[in-house]
Amino acid sequence: MALSVLLRQRFAVREITSKYSRAVGASYSSGYRVGNMPTGPETLPYQVVLTRTTEQQPNAIPRAGFYPQVVAARRFTTLSENRKVQESTVMGKVALNGAARMVEVEWSDGGVSRFPYVWLRDNCQCPLCFNPDSLSRRVLMNDLDVNVSPVRVKLQANGSLLSVEWPQGHQSQYDWQWLRERCFSPQARSEREKDWQRKTQLWGAELVHNLPKADFPAILTHDRALHDFLALLDSVGLVLVQKVPCDVGQVERLANRVAYLRPTNFGKEFVVVNKPNPSDLAYTTGKLGLHTDLNFYDHKPGVQMLHCIEQTMREGGESHLVDGFSVAYQLKEENPDAFRLLTTLKVNFCNVGLDFHKFFLRQRQHTISLNDQGEVQSVSFSDQARDSILDLPADQVQPFYDALKAFDTIMYLPRNCLRFKMAAGEMIVFDNTRTLHGRSAYSLDDIRHLQGGYFDWDEIYSRMRVLKIDLGIKD
Amino acid sequence: MALSVLLRQRFAVREITSKYSRAVGASYSSGYRVGNMPTGPETLPYQVVLTRTTEQQPNAIPRAGFYPQVVAARRFTTLSENRKVQESTVMGKVALNGAARMVEVEWSDGGVSRFPYVWLRDNCQCPLCFNPDSLSRRVLMNDLDVNVSPVRVKLQANGSLLSVEWPQGHQSQYDWQWLRERCFSPQARSEREKDWQRKTQLWGAELVHNLPKADFPAILTHDRALHDFLALLDSVGLVLVQKVPCDVGQVERLANRVAYLRPTNFGKEFVVVNKPNPSDLAYTTGKLGLHTDLNFYDHKPGVQMLHCIEQTMREGGESHLVDGFSVAYQLKEENPDAFRLLTTLKVNFCNVGLDFHKFFLRQRQHTISLNDQGEVQSVSFSDQARDSILDLPADQVQPFYDALKAFDTIMYLPRNCLRFKMAAGEMIVFDNTRTLHGRSAYSLDDIRHLQGGYFDWDEIYSRMRVLKIDLGIKD
Repeated sequence: MALSVLLRQRFAVREITSKYSRAVGASYSSGYRVGNMPTGPETLPYQVVLTRTTEQQPNAIPRAGFYPQVVAARRFTTLSENRKVQESTVMGKVALNGAARMVEVEWSDGGVSRFPYVWLRDNCQCPLCFNPDSLSRRVLMNDLDVNVSPVRVKLQANGSLLSVEWPQGHQSQYDWQWLRERCFSPQARSEREKDWQRKTQLWGAELVHNLPKADFPAILTHDRALHDFLALLDSVGLVLVQKVPCDVGQVERLANRVAYLRPTNFGKEFVVVNKPNPSDLAYTTGKLGLHTDLNFYDHKPGVQMLHCIEQTMREGGESHLVDGFSVAYQLKEENPDAFRLLTTLKVNFCNVGLDFHKFFLRQRQHTISLNDQGEVQSVSFSDQARDSILDLPADQVQPFYDALKAFDTIMYLPRNCLRFKMAAGEMIVFDNTRTLHGRSAYSLDDIRHLQGGYFDWDEIYSRMRVLKIDLGIKD
Repeated sequence: MALSVLLRQRFAVREITSKYSRAVGASYSSGYRVGNMPTGPETLPYQVVLTRTTEQQPNAIPRAGFYPQVVAARRFTTLSENRKVQESTVMGKVALNGAARMVEVEWSDGGVSRFPYVWLRDNCQCPLCFNPDSLSRRVLMNDLDVNVSPVRVKLQANGSLLSVEWPQGHQSQYDWQWLRERCFSPQARSEREKDWQRKTQLWGAELVHNLPKADFPAILTHDRALHDFLALLDSVGLVLVQKVPCDVGQVERLANRVAYLRPTNFGKEFVVVNKPNPSDLAYTTGKLGLHTDLNFYDHKPGVQMLHCIEQTMREGGESHLVDGFSVAYQLKEENPDAFRLLTTLKVNFCNVGLDFHKFFLRQRQHTISLNDQGEVQSVSFSDQARDSILDLPADQVQPFYDALKAFDTIMYLPRNCLRFKMAAGEMIVFDNTRTLHGRSAYSLDDIRHLQGGYFDWDEIYSRMRVLKIDLGIKD
């Protein structure tokens, strides 16, 4: 009996196949119409466009001994619309630069790429050095000689493959496209950088007239609708999902289409109604100030869903929504001192109580967090969860409050604060690191029932990348 | 019919009570033997020890009109062994400092604390301003006058309560202990800071002779055992859990005792066996280099469990475990340039494949991350998940590899690398942001079956704080 069968029988191992990686290889290794690449990587920003076609590539380059599924899967880490690939052989010359310890590749368009010896050895793609099923490196740093130098290099297959011979006879081959996508030139890195940048669209209250919308049944059944919904969520940070069935469990269905619900101290799916002895102010009929949720987590949930199952009959229960990135940039413009304080002073957040379980969560967060480029990457603001403990020197307290008040005041400006009353069967889905939400009070004898849940950005971006590959979507 | 009953019937609302917050209040509001406080908060580091007693406090201060459960629950954010509380009235004088916009409280021991006006108003603990069920602020920044000044202040209840009258007649009362625990003096803040510091115990290979151990049945049934297990996990970053039943589902049982499993692209609970077409190198019989898991997440799982259900009969399948914090500090000492590079250059991690679902995760991480104090707070290292894309300038590649090699070399030194072969019925639980793990290869025709799962530090610390309150544990 084969070991794999034995294992399945003994341990009820989940069905694991490499169908995905193979499918990627099969679909993409020979399906491109290849365009022009007029400029070299060291001269101008280099551009590669892979245009997917259904027919076979007419002048496909032979790839004897190479591993197309690996190349293809990895390739999509750097795909973008504005890249162009030359039709014919692209490596014209190759040479060793012993002083710099780099292999120099001269492209047929005249540009030069330099690949460090140690990086080439570490990233040999042969089956001994790289596992084509798990798409992961087998070379261990522990076994790697970081001072290794090639014995010789040469071009093969009409310049489409770089062949490197290492001491002790180990042979590596590198595909020209794989190499270009890993070029270390400033231009190539700058081009790759675009894939890491969010395409953020700032908005104000006017968005209420043009709310980004998605259709719940379509999201659940069509991959393209799912992709477009997630892309809106990424760029705008707010999507109104419509035609949602008016019963419990829909936020989990949506989360499961992306990946899974993110559980928190409020459980997996939470019920926002007026409750006796509420564990959270949301579970009252009172007004809720604009806030982001769960700032007392080191890693708060990335996205929140609020699904309206029943809405108030009378006044109140209106949602307030604000683009935290937009108001942060307005604050930076109008009150740079306040912006500086809110990006440098940490605020204590705390939550103690009983819900899904007993909890006592706390963290200190910047109200406005910046990324390495100085762009706003996260907002953490909540009147209700801000701790009464404030770990600041006494003389910084008033300036801190002035700054927080300035931020809050800009949020509530009519131009910024979108007011919108959800109807039963609608769900708002928003970026909890960016979009602040609140609500107006409603009457104690009125009924309002929302179901809430969370999921995270790691899973969203993963899902979007997979969908882009599966559907052939270019950015 | 009462609204709450109506709601329960209509929406099957989960059972929510404020039992926890009330229980905290009941247990702790009058159960302390109060010690000496020899020095004032502005003169020497101030120390408060709350010694829990079973009998009533003999000279309990009357607290008419105050909200003990709130005070008690919040108090534990700053509890620590080395604090002492004076027996008698502690507020001797109170005055307004209009120039500084602070209320100055003179303690009977001579120290002075200064509380900014705006902070006092924002943190009024009356039921209009603070919800005692959800333990959260009702005052909205939107309604707060940050330029507010008290009309008058006075002491009440033998100096145990500070009473503040605000314009328009609003009244606030603040308990002396609540105030002291929120003192803004450098000494008080420095004392509170200790509650945010991890008590890290560094270790090397010698730990194998004295492995931190925990008993699985005890963890599941005794809160004290659970607390002590989590405290070991926090300080050492590695615990060997014993007497675990040899069947699937135990990692979920353990995670559920803390909070819940953290789902990932490998599902909730994953099976580490030799699999055909593996989605991860762990699912082969090969040697696994020392690594931390899932560095391609922005927020990788905080803790990993590996439960041994069946171990190899022959050689191999031995676990390798290394304290990443210890080796990072060794690197800093022995090779400061390498340490600097690994704390400043970001490394690409990537994972593409099919397991629980199709995934394409990627992130860039520092190999060694430092916190605001320059202490090592996280290690991200993995030969297998490090991407072949490396977004560094060409001339930084060799120095980066030299640094990574230096780090790896220190990890594998016999003094650092703990080698240990789990037996069936044992589970290692370790800090995935700190403790690197790997394994030796084993024979293709041998059988080895581990079950794996993750949970996160936010939930661990929350659980530990709750257990400290419930069990009366002092740090």
